[in-house]
This record gives sequence, C-alpha cells and structure tokens, in this order.
Amino acid sequence: MERLHELLERIIQRVNVNLREPLFDVGPYVRGLVPWQQLVKFYAFYGITPYHPLDFHFSRANLSGSYFLGRCHVTDAILYKSDIRGDELKRSGEIFKYEGFEIPLTEDETIRIKDSYLIKTLVHNNSHDPETPEEFIIQNTVSTHYANIHGSDVEGCFLGPFSTVDLTALHDCVIGNFVYAQVGELSHRQLPAGTVWVRNGNHFDFTYHHSPDVLQRYIRFDSGKPPEGIFMDFVEGRKEDFQRIFDVVNLESFPNVPEGASVNRYAVIKPKTQFNKNVLVAQRAYIENSWMGIGANAQENCYILHSRLSGYNVTAHGAKIIHADLGEKVFVGFNSFLQGTPDHRLTIGANSIVMPHTIIDLSEPVTIPEEHLVWGLIRTQDDVADHSVPLAELASVEGPFQRGGMRFAGNGRLFVEGFQHRIEHILEANGAYFDGSSQHGHAQQSQNISFNLIQPYPEGALKGLFPTIDIHP
Amino acid sequence: MERLHELLERIIQRVNVNLREPLFDVGPYVRGLVPWQQLVKFYAFYGITPYHPLDFHFSRANLSGSYFLGRCHVTDAILYKSDIRGDELKRSGEIFKYEGFEIPLTEDETIRIKDSYLIKTLVHNNSHDPETPEEFIIQNTVSTHYANIHGSDVEGCFLGPFSTVDLTALHDCVIGNFVYAQVGELSHRQLPAGTVWVRNGNHFDFTYHHSPDVLQRYIRFDSGKPPEGIFMDFVEGRKEDFQRIFDVVNLESFPNVPEGASVNRYAVIKPKTQFNKNVLVAQRAYIENSWMGIGANAQENCYILHSRLSGYNVTAHGAKIIHADLGEKVFVGFNSFLQGTPDHRLTIGANSIVMPHTIIDLSEPVTIPEEHLVWGLIRTQDDVADHSVPLAELASVEGPFQRGGMRFAGNGRLFVEGFQHRIEHILEANGAYFDGSSQHGHAQQSQNISFNLIQPYPEGALKGLFPTIDIHP
Repeated sequence: MERLHELLERIIQRVNVNLREPLFDVGPYVRGLVPWQQLVKFYAFYGITPYHPLDFHFSRANLSGSYFLGRCHVTDAILYKSDIRGDELKRSGEIFKYEGFEIPLTEDETIRIKDSYLIKTLVHNNSHDPETPEEFIIQNTVSTHYANIHGSDVEGCFLGPFSTVDLTALHDCVIGNFVYAQVGELSHRQLPAGTVWVRNGNHFDFTYHHSPDVLQRYIRFDSGKPPEGIFMDFVEGRKEDFQRIFDVVNLESFPNVPEGASVNRYAVIKPKTQFNKNVLVAQRAYIENSWMGIGANAQENCYILHSRLSGYNVTAHGAKIIHADLGEKVFVGFNSFLQGTPDHRLTIGANSIVMPHTIIDLSEPVTIPEEHLVWGLIRTQDDVADHSVPLAELASVEGPFQRGGMRFAGNGRLFVEGFQHRIEHILEANGAYFDGSSQHGHAQQSQNISFNLIQPYPEGALKGLFPTIDIHP
Repeated sequence: MERLHELLERIIQRVNVNLREPLFDVGPYVRGLVPWQQLVKFYAFYGITPYHPLDFHFSRANLSGSYFLGRCHVTDAILYKSDIRGDELKRSGEIFKYEGFEIPLTEDETIRIKDSYLIKTLVHNNSHDPETPEEFIIQNTVSTHYANIHGSDVEGCFLGPFSTVDLTALHDCVIGNFVYAQVGELSHRQLPAGTVWVRNGNHFDFTYHHSPDVLQRYIRFDSGKPPEGIFMDFVEGRKEDFQRIFDVVNLESFPNVPEGASVNRYAVIKPKTQFNKNVLVAQRAYIENSWMGIGANAQENCYILHSRLSGYNVTAHGAKIIHADLGEKVFVGFNSFLQGTPDHRLTIGANSIVMPHTIIDLSEPVTIPEEHLVWGLIRTQDDVADHSVPLAELASVEGPFQRGGMRFAGNGRLFVEGFQHRIEHILEANGAYFDGSSQHGHAQQSQNISFNLIQPYPEGALKGLFPTIDIHP
C-alpha cells in the first residue's frame, strides 16, 4: 500500500503549495480522515450509454466507491465515494457563450481530475471557465464530505464538508463548511463557514451567514476528526440501506417506473414511494414513503422522506426533504435541509425557491407561501417573515435590500429571472418536459445504462491503486 | 444490435475461408446457437493480482459472461461464458525450449483472440508454437460448448462441444465432438467425433475412438440445435447454482479455507465440502459434499460431487467426479466423466491416470487398481480389464500394443514418464507443494484477487458490443 500513502502525501503537498496565500495546511484535516481500509474496500463504477461520449482514463488513482459518467480523466488522485457525473459536459460543435464572447468548441468537453482528494463529493455540470471551455478541471484540490463542485473549475482549493461551489472558477481558495458560493470567479480567498453568497458581476449580490451555533449543531469540522453534527448523523444513519444495492450486480428494477422516468439502480427506494412520469432519481438518492409528481427529480445525495412533491420539482444535489408537501415547481437548492415531523409538517407553495444551503428544521407546522424566495434558518412560522421575500417584491428591488440576516444589492429582477431561468433549464435538462417523443433529458437518457465495476490492486505496494484503464467507443 | 449481427457473420466468413479444405461451413452450427438476448445479458470480468502482468485490450467484441486473467487482447470476437486464463503465460526473460531450439523471450506472452467465436470455452496454459512463442493465438476459429484450448494456437478451426486441443498447433482443422488431440501440430484435418489421440513425433502414438452410440448418448451435436446428451444434461441441471454467485459483487468467502488454499469466489461450493491446504478451486468449478485432500485441484468446469480426493489429485479442466474415492495423485484428464452412484461407488487407486475424455459410468461398484492407465468407456468391473493397463506394463512396451479399442505404438516408457512428469509439473504450477514460504503456485497467487466487471452498450446499433478497453499497470 506504499504507493497509496505516497499519493496522499503528494496531493497534500500540491494543495498546500497552492494555499500559501491564504496560508492553510490541509494535511491535518485529511490525514486519517478516511481509514486506509475503506480506501481499498469499495469498487468504483462507470456508466455506459449510447448518449454520452465515452472516454475514461484512470491512472495512478484510488477510486474507491466512486461513480463516473461521461468523458473523464483521473490521474494521481484519490476519489472516495464521489460522483463524477459528466452528463452535462459541452459537446464538440457547440458555441460556448461567455459575456461578449462566442467560443466555438472543437472537441467534447472532458472532466480532468488531477492531484486531488475528493471525499463523497459530487462533480456535475460543465466548466464555466471561458479560458478552458473544453476542460472541466479539478486540480490540486481537497474536497470533503458532501461537497458539491458544480460547473466550477477548482485549482488549489480546500472545500469543507457540505460546501458547494457553483458556476464559479476558484483558484487557491479555502471554502469553509456549508459555504455556498456562486460568484463567477474567486482567487486567494478564504470563505468562512456558513457563508451563502450569490454574486453576478455588477448585477446583484446576495449574502447570508449561518451563525456559529447553527454550524456547531448542524455541521462542524475540526482537524483530526471526521465532520460531525445533525447533517452527518442523518446520512450516517441511513448508510446501511445503500449496502445492499452496492452488493448486487444486477438489481431488480424498481417496479412500475412510469414512462419517461428513470430510477437509478444505485438509489435506495423504500416502500410506499410513487413515481410519476419523467421523474429522475440519481444514484445515491434515497426516497422513502414519498410521492414524486411529473418531472420531479432527486439528485445525488438527496433524501426525500414522507413527502409529496407535486411535480416539476427540482431537488438539487444533497438536498433533504422530510415530512414536507411541496407545490409545483418548488426548487430546493443544494444541501438544503428541510425537516418537518409527522406532527409538524412543512408546506411550501408553488414556484417558491428555497435557496441553496437553507435549513428548515421545524418545531411547529410551517407554511411558506407560493412564489417566495426562502433562505437561512427557519424553525417556526414566525421565522418565515425574516427569512423569505415574495419573488415579485424582490424583483422590484433596485439597490440595497435587507431582510433578517440577508443582504441584497443590485438588480432584483435580474436575480429572480436568472434563478427562474435556471430552474427551467434544469427541468429541461432533466427531461421533465419529455412528451414521449421530444424534449429528451437525463431521465430518458439514463433509462438504459450499463454499469462497469473496477477494483484496485488487492495486494502489494500498489494495493489500493487502480491499474491504468482507458475506455473508448 | 446491428454491429453484433455483422460481427457474427464476419467471424463465420473468416472461419469458412480457412475451412475450404476440409470443406466445412460453420454457419449452420453457430447461427442461433446462443440466443442474441443471452449475448447482451451477462457482464464480463477480469482479475487483477500483483502476480500476473496486466495488459488487457478489448475492442469490437462481445464478451458476455467471460473471464480474463493475465495479458489478453480480444478484437472482433464473441466470447460467451468463456474462461481466458493467462496465469501460465511465458514471461520476458525466460528461455522457451523447443526440440533443439532455445528461444529467448523478450516480452511477456499475450493471448490474442481475433475473428473468433468461443462458447463456454476454456483457454489456458501458453503457446507451444515455437514460431510465435510470445503470442498465444486464437484466430478465425469457432469453438463450442466446453471445448478446451489448452496450450494450443488455433487458426481457422472449428472445435465441437467437449473437444480438447492440448499442446497442439492447429491450422484449418475441424475437431469433432469430444475429440481429444495432443499431437504437436495438425493442418487441414478433420478429426471424427470421439477420437482420443496422443502423439509425440516418432516417440509414441496412442489412439482410442468412442463409438457412435456412446457419442449419441453422451454428446451429440447437430447443426441448428444446441449440443445434447448426458454431458449437457448434467451441466445444465446445475446452472441455477451459478446464478447466485454471479449476481453478487463481493461474495462472503467460503469459510475455513486452509492455509495455502484458494477457492475462487466464482466457484459453487455446496454443503459438507472440506478443503485441505494448498487446494485450488478455479472459477466455474462445482464442489458438493466432497473432501479434497492436500494440494488437490478442481479446474474450470469441473464438477466434484460426493467424492473423496486423497490429495495431490489433478482434476483437469471439465472433468466430473461423482460418488468416487480417489487415491493420492490420481490424475483425471480433461472432460472425463466419472460417475458412480451411492450404491455403486468408483474407487481409483493411487497414482493412476485417467486419460482425458474417459467415461466411467457405473452400473455396479468398480475398483481401478493403483498405478494404472485408464481410458475409453467403463461401466462394470469387467470393463476395466480391456480399458486399463498397469503403468509399469505400458512402460515396458516397445512397438505396437493393443488392448480393447486402444492402439499404442512407440516407446511406452516415454509415454508414461512424459505423463508423470506433466502431472508433477501441474501440481507444482498449482501450488500443491507450497510449504508456507516457497513453491508458490496458482493456489497461493489467486488467494487475493480483485475482480472487475465490464458490460456492453445497453442500446442502439452497438448494443451487445463492449467499448474499447485498455488496462495496464
């Protein structure tokens, strides 16, 4: 196993070289974070379909428990139970628009992961960096449990647990626990834990900061220990259910998957769940006793329990929805934690937008009206007033706007319309509007996928490393 | 699935081009022989260990249910539930001795399979063709159920069900059902079903022919139908037991595997079986209620039921042993079928050699003494006299010798010593003599192996073909 030890130290050094400014040593956080025996225990797997260009390259890497779809090259990296989902990579022949530029693409985009250590991380979407439009690059980077790297090239970064970087090119940054950053570009910055920050050039700027005691309860991460708190307890408590589906090669399909829908065989589906047409359930999603309306989706690391999603709902990567009733087109952002109880249900009206990294953890029944934007921490009906705004009201804002701990500056209409436009785009990409013959999306293109299982060297100096593997059409 | 159809027709044409002389059309035998849905249903798998040089290349191929170990390239071929076991390939730096030549090898040997269709075929050992010592070539060839291609380059051949070609380079030959040929080299020949033929240059020549009515009962093969008879009924009747072990990714290890032994996780092990140290059980072996003594082995497609193997027993690929007691170092050759019953047990004394393709199917208890050579068909104790000879007696033969349907010519001592030497070599290669630190063999080197599962395109024109895959260290 010597090579695997050397690989980890190599990665730590590469990241630390990048993080001289801000000065940050990732070593104490990641050494021992995943026990060595875990890194050699799990197979990796990749999907093959006729719809996704095929070009896998893996070398000098440990890929334990990780999943790959679409063009992806991994070298000198450790990927532990991570999802590298390249089903939204750009294609040769497309035009990539970035501000004034129209950049023609002459090859299919590839995800390139190098000198990095990703733990239970989701990688999805495509590169939004106009400098490398055909490469979605993750390099010299450590990311920890349930981080989302979404449409974001990251170089020389540390991502704390449950953090999300979204449509943002990051260079030499330290992203704290549960940070959500969608800010275009960021260099040599350290974002404190609990920051929720959306910025679009000079158009608008949205910020909210979860308080230290909220972070202490829900997600804390000290060096030398794994992440702790309610978020970790929640997912760890349901780990066993995933064991069975990973142990079996060809699982019986979930019965009665309706037309246009796809339920990934690496998702956990528990009793009394009903799917409607065009539903998309990704690998590592967990659905129990829930009703998912037409075109609703559940992405990687989503948990939907005892809930009803009326239809066209987007549940972004890592979001949890428990004992809740969601109207049509309710959007629940990355890593949000929405927890009602049997006696204190959560109701969210149609077309409302739950900001990424929102915590709704109820001690009484709560209703959020339709067409609202919601953020922060909500426990009671009274909390709603300070943590939401009607979309129409926000759209009328020009200049600074403040509500509770939320600060907004710039053009409210651009913010609201940008969000709504993005939700429509996600629904289209997921295939929520598939009509039986046109408007295909992920749900339809994932219906018939074959999975391939690869394993590391079982013994010797190379133990834990995977052989070099190249896969082409 | 268009490409897969085209591939089969391409292979048929290539084989037929080779078989102009003898004129033979493989098409009617292989079209429809394996239903298309079977060819797209099963995953293929390959093993990775630190002991076997790693170099897999698969392209334009269907590999459904097949297994690979060691360096192997497969292109434009269909391999259905076949075992390509390259754990005896020659290594760079070795000297390959062939008659007067000492040929230095400058690269690791590779199995190359091209334009061929192998059905439930075993490929093992290494090339004995001095013209291509670094390549074990199978090209323009069709082989059918339970054929063994053992140390034999084959080009332009058709191999009938349960046939074995052993240490023989074959060009443009038709090998009938249940033929065993170990003859060095053979070109443009058609060997009738049931032939058992061992020839070593001018040194010796052993022949036996199973009668047409024996072939009719045990293994017949007509074009347009799958093979039929007692052999097929026997294996088909136990097919279900293999289903479970192929369905699970990581099977619980068989408990109490003793030191130095290995039991492949793709073998079926049924209750009341006991293994002793240095036992080797290969994938697709089936063991039930049996005792396997020190260093005993069971190769691919072996079935050992209700039997006791005293130790250092070699059970060659495809041999079946039912209700039998075998003394030490009893050798049971390829595809032999030894069937006692609870009331009519078979007993074979130590050091006896059961020739490949021998049928012992008892209607009364039968004992074969120690140090005998056995062949042909034995049903009763009386049959033994005409179908066996003491090894010492055979070793004294110079010139022609005949017993029952067996004809021998040449030097008996060379034949007996050659056989004994080969058995010792097999035991060594299998690791039967491992003493805890030295004399490693397959049993020890297969103890810790990781399996990788690959699947074909699930849809579209490429359905059933596997993507191009390259695997290196």
